[in-house]
Amino acid sequence: MKVPRYYLVKNEILALIADLEPGDVVPTERELAERFGTSRTTVRQAISELVVEGRLERTQGRGTFVARPKLMQVRQLTSFSQDLAEEGWRPGSRILSITTEPAAGELCRRLQVDPGTPVHRVERLRTQAGEPIALEVAHVPGPLPGLREELEARGSLYRSLGEAYGREVEAVEDVVETVLAEPLTANLLGVDTGLPLLLVHRTAWDSKGTVVEWTRSQFRGDRFRFVARQRLDDRAHPAAAAAGG
Amino acid sequence: MKVPRYYLVKNEILALIADLEPGDVVPTERELAERFGTSRTTVRQAISELVVEGRLERTQGRGTFVARPKLMQVRQLTSFSQDLAEEGWRPGSRILSITTEPAAGELCRRLQVDPGTPVHRVERLRTQAGEPIALEVAHVPGPLPGLREELEARGSLYRSLGEAYGREVEAVEDVVETVLAEPLTANLLGVDTGLPLLLVHRTAWDSKGTVVEWTRSQFRGDRFRFVARQRLDDRAHPAAAAAGG
Repeated sequence: MKVPRYYLVKNEILALIADLEPGDVVPTERELAERFGTSRTTVRQAISELVVEGRLERTQGRGTFVARPKLMQVRQLTSFSQDLAEEGWRPGSRILSITTEPAAGELCRRLQVDPGTPVHRVERLRTQAGEPIALEVAHVPGPLPGLREELEARGSLYRSLGEAYGREVEAVEDVVETVLAEPLTANLLGVDTGLPLLLVHRTAWDSKGTVVEWTRSQFRGDRFRFVARQRLDDRAHPAAAAAGG
Repeated sequence: MKVPRYYLVKNEILALIADLEPGDVVPTERELAERFGTSRTTVRQAISELVVEGRLERTQGRGTFVARPKLMQVRQLTSFSQDLAEEGWRPGSRILSITTEPAAGELCRRLQVDPGTPVHRVERLRTQAGEPIALEVAHVPGPLPGLREELEARGSLYRSLGEAYGREVEAVEDVVETVLAEPLTANLLGVDTGLPLLLVHRTAWDSKGTVVEWTRSQFRGDRFRFVARQRLDDRAHPAAAAAGG
């Protein structure tokens, strides 16, 4: 098979930046095109893929740089904010909306509640050192009086659920797949439409097997890695029981 | 902000196929362009994204169809073959190569072995009902005499390690991120170069905390979902201990 030219250039650039540090500047498109004896179009395609993969970062008008390593979130039974803080990151969160709607259709099935049960919908932009990383929509069965105040006071949804409402998360299931960023999502995350994202659907249960949340998170694929750990005794799990296994 | 035209068409197509079954045929580009009053180029871009996201499937010369649902692999402490068989799929595997190399650099660090330790490298194409799903390169510290014969007889690497060499997996860590398919990988998986893939790096430990394997798997983003389950008592984990946490 024939390997496309831009792909060879991509590998040349990877070799070039292997010994550089995050934040180091990368030669311009024109310089790289001259060095590799190819067109600027070819170089541009190679750089675009390296940006999508989180190896390079491009700043409007400032140039192209070696990217910082991807964030590693160890998905414990804790929240985004707790996870990242433990890893030494600087997590932040901006509440975009908190609404309440009666459960219907898929929400009833996911949350295991009757139609009409009030469900709180919390939409948040998750950040790291001020940079948008994920767009998250959590669904939590109500009633949860004063949720906005509790959440604003504590920052973390899990901490609010535990401390203010006595709902402790005991087990979770995360389903991870790739999707392409929609225009509105891309706009909020500050990335290009069509960037590959990690879409994570999380279901969380308390110790009685009651569903605590069902959440849809879209993480920037260029800035985020998902970590899952598992031991042999994990087989006794609400999700496994629900699936009849 | 302005939402691109193709994206509106994409949503129209999603609404159109919502009530169809996997395998149902989708109208042609020309028919869709007429129906939505737009150009074939715009329709083509919308369809391309839906193919990448695993919502539509395109077959050369036959047309475009509603895609089958993505495979869900519940990443238990079992192998690809066991996981999928339990879910009712028809997993298969083709050995591309088995080689032995002395450990050096990153492999020493990942496998926690001294430089020069023989390491078996097993490259396999994983399939579901004959369709390529993942390209997997496993690194297993040796010596493992007769590995190829054991693997060919049992199909599963984990079963071979357990039954033939007494190495039982007790805990795993999976790191999941997005990458774009390289030309050689794309060729083996039968997809377009640049398709978003789920790249999974797995480290597995036995009950003594010894590393059993370090494996790099690239799953087709259009055909695969990754499932991770976790309970509260999962914190005592070799990976957590190794990370000093």
